[in-house]
Amino acid sequence: MGQKRPRTNLDLVNECDNFPYYSDGPEVYKATLQDYYHFLLEGYETCLGYVTSTVAAQLPITQHWTRDDSKRRLIFQPRDDSGAPVQTLEERNNILAEYLQDVRERKIFRVLDGWRAELYPVYGPNKELLLNMERSASPLFGVVTYGVHLTGYVRTDEGMKIWTPRRSLTKQTYPGMMDNTVAGGISTGERPFECLVRECEEEASLPAELVRSAVKACGTLTYFHVRDARAGGETGLCQPEVQYIYDLEMPPDVIPSPGDDEAIDFQLLTVQEVQKAMADGRFKPNCAHLLLEFFIRHGILTEENEPEYIEISSRLHRKLEFPTA
Amino acid sequence: MGQKRPRTNLDLVNECDNFPYYSDGPEVYKATLQDYYHFLLEGYETCLGYVTSTVAAQLPITQHWTRDDSKRRLIFQPRDDSGAPVQTLEERNNILAEYLQDVRERKIFRVLDGWRAELYPVYGPNKELLLNMERSASPLFGVVTYGVHLTGYVRTDEGMKIWTPRRSLTKQTYPGMMDNTVAGGISTGERPFECLVRECEEEASLPAELVRSAVKACGTLTYFHVRDARAGGETGLCQPEVQYIYDLEMPPDVIPSPGDDEAIDFQLLTVQEVQKAMADGRFKPNCAHLLLEFFIRHGILTEENEPEYIEISSRLHRKLEFPTA
Repeated sequence: MGQKRPRTNLDLVNECDNFPYYSDGPEVYKATLQDYYHFLLEGYETCLGYVTSTVAAQLPITQHWTRDDSKRRLIFQPRDDSGAPVQTLEERNNILAEYLQDVRERKIFRVLDGWRAELYPVYGPNKELLLNMERSASPLFGVVTYGVHLTGYVRTDEGMKIWTPRRSLTKQTYPGMMDNTVAGGISTGERPFECLVRECEEEASLPAELVRSAVKACGTLTYFHVRDARAGGETGLCQPEVQYIYDLEMPPDVIPSPGDDEAIDFQLLTVQEVQKAMADGRFKPNCAHLLLEFFIRHGILTEENEPEYIEISSRLHRKLEFPTA
Repeated sequence: MGQKRPRTNLDLVNECDNFPYYSDGPEVYKATLQDYYHFLLEGYETCLGYVTSTVAAQLPITQHWTRDDSKRRLIFQPRDDSGAPVQTLEERNNILAEYLQDVRERKIFRVLDGWRAELYPVYGPNKELLLNMERSASPLFGVVTYGVHLTGYVRTDEGMKIWTPRRSLTKQTYPGMMDNTVAGGISTGERPFECLVRECEEEASLPAELVRSAVKACGTLTYFHVRDARAGGETGLCQPEVQYIYDLEMPPDVIPSPGDDEAIDFQLLTVQEVQKAMADGRFKPNCAHLLLEFFIRHGILTEENEPEYIEISSRLHRKLEFPTA
């Protein structure tokens, strides 16, 4: 394999936020949508996610589901034993959990081999919790998922440096790639900030008191990712994501270290070293995306050194076409 | 007139970024587009802006223009005296300038009463400069315009305070409303940072050395505004804008003061005072929009105190449907 040219920052953005935009070409956008089914919950008109045609064809259609091939809709309509629609969130969740467990055991989808036994929330048009869904199943239905990402940095005489972990070689997704200082998914019922404090302790052994007192919320990163082989499992699955962004300026004497088996180690890298690793494609795509946001916010990437400044700034904050929290 | 309820932050966003989104409702979006003509330059397929039907019908159609009512396109096709297409940017600009001067003298559009004798750039699909256009005419053609906005703040014992000017009562647009510390439009040929340094000196008497050494570039604010009566002139005109965002942490002893006739005065307001004035609708809409971005970036607005955090974060960084710089 020949030497690859370094990735530009726009290349990195295109790798993470890679579902087409209507405004870039209505025809391409509409043609892409023809490959997907709309995932809906009975009683709600709002599409909750996009399901690939392949997945829609493979999902078993039980009494709790309708697949409408002409309208390209996959509708979850949970029923009780008498065949009547169930009324409560708990009943819906139980039926969905049982269904996904059965799908998992039948080994229909490889993504379910990465079963997490962790529930992710799915929200409706009025921010109401509509469903809890097993984390590994969320890309099958293309629902929005939520996470926290923290950049831990140190101001040194040589300029800003960033604490950068390498992902464990045994991780199901993106093994060995470089990551943000701390990052994790938000389970149902968990507040973003509490999730962050927990992940900082688990992943990087950062004391909760430091995080609570010194961390700064800086906005959200939103993008619409379509999964490729590096994510593991089926490709083409939709992964629209919201990441709550946090900065932590760290005292020089605080050294993060892996507290669980997520990371191999942490390196304190200069901005130039981080940018080089990004250009070489060594970062997990959404982590490179987050670092671009960090670099723009800290005046490292500017309109003077980045020709695609305006485009990149928008692409870091995509307005998703599904309801969110 | 009864007491108005305070505006929410999402209300403020909706006031500034008020052109519909395709993803919020394709039918509404398409119906809205039916009210507009696409502004094109001959030889380029990319739409450069949206022109209201009323404006399209009133613009004189000379040998340099084609109005296609069936395709709803308004095409600028500058011709030389022999009727052949002109070849250079300079010739195009001269023809456009002469045309707009004529339209101005015929008093067809009220927005041209605010003639600025200042040229704004219009870019093509490859970021090439396609046209220079008189500033006051840009909303007639709905082309993207560019500006710089700076938030000057001071860290005090009582918390962060923000230097806030009130616009002159004699300004053509948004007289008497509150504004960002420094803000201005970028003319053709001017770099954003140099524009900022100039405006800081002109509008707020801030020394260039301070600005050059202490200012921080923090990204872009992008939105698609449709003008109402407060902007002066015709309503319904499209104003898609890119604002380059800068922060300036100011020493307590630097006091901004009006250097030209743009502002009445500057007040140093607490964050709470600024938020109250925003809720009361006292800020120029795009300046309130910019302050929301500032508050998110500085951890003042968070997911814990702002229910529309995700939506607002996206709406501050709209991906525009026209080419940009």
